[in-house]
Amino acid sequence: MPAQAPSPKSASVRSSEAFFAPLKEHIAILDQFLAEQIDAFEPAVRELVRYTFTHRGKRLRPGLVFYAGWNNQLPSRDLVRAAAIVELVHLATLVHDDILDEASLRHNSQTVAARYGQHPAVLLGDALFAHALILSAEYPTTHVCRWIARATREVCSGEICQTFDRGNTALSLEQYFRIIQLKTAELFEVSCRLGAHIAFGDEKYTEACALFGRHLGIAYQIFDDIADFIGDEAGIGKTLGTDLASGKFTLPTLLHLRTLDDAAARQLALDLEQRKISPEELAARLRATAIPARCLEIFQGEIAKAEAALAPHEGKPSVALLQALSGYVREQLATLSF
Amino acid sequence: MPAQAPSPKSASVRSSEAFFAPLKEHIAILDQFLAEQIDAFEPAVRELVRYTFTHRGKRLRPGLVFYAGWNNQLPSRDLVRAAAIVELVHLATLVHDDILDEASLRHNSQTVAARYGQHPAVLLGDALFAHALILSAEYPTTHVCRWIARATREVCSGEICQTFDRGNTALSLEQYFRIIQLKTAELFEVSCRLGAHIAFGDEKYTEACALFGRHLGIAYQIFDDIADFIGDEAGIGKTLGTDLASGKFTLPTLLHLRTLDDAAARQLALDLEQRKISPEELAARLRATAIPARCLEIFQGEIAKAEAALAPHEGKPSVALLQALSGYVREQLATLSF
Repeated sequence: MPAQAPSPKSASVRSSEAFFAPLKEHIAILDQFLAEQIDAFEPAVRELVRYTFTHRGKRLRPGLVFYAGWNNQLPSRDLVRAAAIVELVHLATLVHDDILDEASLRHNSQTVAARYGQHPAVLLGDALFAHALILSAEYPTTHVCRWIARATREVCSGEICQTFDRGNTALSLEQYFRIIQLKTAELFEVSCRLGAHIAFGDEKYTEACALFGRHLGIAYQIFDDIADFIGDEAGIGKTLGTDLASGKFTLPTLLHLRTLDDAAARQLALDLEQRKISPEELAARLRATAIPARCLEIFQGEIAKAEAALAPHEGKPSVALLQALSGYVREQLATLSF
Repeated sequence: MPAQAPSPKSASVRSSEAFFAPLKEHIAILDQFLAEQIDAFEPAVRELVRYTFTHRGKRLRPGLVFYAGWNNQLPSRDLVRAAAIVELVHLATLVHDDILDEASLRHNSQTVAARYGQHPAVLLGDALFAHALILSAEYPTTHVCRWIARATREVCSGEICQTFDRGNTALSLEQYFRIIQLKTAELFEVSCRLGAHIAFGDEKYTEACALFGRHLGIAYQIFDDIADFIGDEAGIGKTLGTDLASGKFTLPTLLHLRTLDDAAARQLALDLEQRKISPEELAARLRATAIPARCLEIFQGEIAKAEAALAPHEGKPSVALLQALSGYVREQLATLSF
């Protein structure tokens, strides 16, 4: 498809459709596969599962599976199942995250917790996790089970760490990167690993894709944190600005906190908690500093590491598509006016 | 060890220690194995995992694994791992159940949700589930992953059905049995299946054990529901009487509701919800009817089905121990003055 007209914000920004266009048929096959899973759940649970599948996001993680396993053909059943597995794990974490964040909107729809109640949301998340593992056990070996179960545990551990670190003005950058490694990058990494392993079974290429996924995941989370920080609700389609109000400090705030002494840092946290300073005011204050440039630099560094991991395998069609995807994430960041 | 003196309630009741005595070494090995798992979690999560492991219950499900796989020797590493897996799944469901029930006590200790907060409890349950699946992927084939993931999904589905059926005075006995099949019997069944499969690999014996576990699980849940209904808090060690107040109708109440017309049933539900009738008053009312005898009859029927499943395999040491365990569950019911 032709590239769209440049947006006023950035000459390089194209619609996400350009990057996802090669996946159209793959995603349709994935959606059909997911729809077929609904009947495996108890009748009383099916409406919740269907709701979760319908109010869907960008299918970014399945996209990683398909691109890492791209061989210019329609995807094998094994590859589609892997895409479904990572999407199920992702959806399960969203269902549980939305309980924790007390968010009411996700992808411009009501969250499961807001629509059906917190209790069913806890259990639905569990059932989606479990179904992902049932599908993982359909491969001939235990590799997929092991990778998916491990990524799931790490995602949850990252969320627990983040919950315990709410309001911690002394959170180090190392701790911040560890948290986003666990809560986001693990699943990006396993998505790429599965796609490459299932489609090609080439260990070097698989590990290169896994490394690509890990750094892309870190970059993506930094983008997501900045979008929440500057409150671009329309572009993201979920309740934003919730991070700061609940004491969840992400990259921009952490960089700012490091410029303050202990007392000033604690005072800022208190002012944010008591809403004496709004997220918008803090964002405006930071725009006058070097922090946006530093965030961008860290983000670009992760994108560069992701792309470097694939360099030895350039020439493969799958690598060109993965690099287009990292280009998409880079351009998503460029849409934010930070 | 010698049998204890008969209790005043029932001449046949012995301490649970008599039934679990053969397992002492096995459980010590299991506890050691579980303690070794703690370091696999993120540092920030370990305290919660340790707390969950320490404030433990009867280890009934690991007991089923060990007894179904009993061969008069110390358990193999594979058998111990299976016992740990079912205990982890059980602990994860308890951590999540306690959020849903808003209970503050479990086995006479604070629940994870009460001690650490609801958010960490949601995520800790997820991480425990995931760790159970990581261990399941350590077997050479995908059998254990498949069975454990399936049982986990069914347990959660049962809990969702139960949540949606709160306050439903028209809940049929069939629906009640389906719910307890899912939420309790599935994990009893898979515990027996794993123990038999891993220790002996004999398909007929494995399926007999699985059927035993299923019926024992249904019987056990009926016992648990009656204990909650008549409010024997000291004997059970958790917050009781919570079922009725929250509109969760179990066997005794459902049998009573069937004797009322629609209007009277709805009035009773309303009176219970508004605490115009206390659980104790309802229990006293039911004691004057045939309902306790009917509950006992249904319970005994399930115990009989459990024991019948094992009949073709009598003579195996494992079968004698499983039957002692069903004897234990039967005698637990006899301790209740319903």
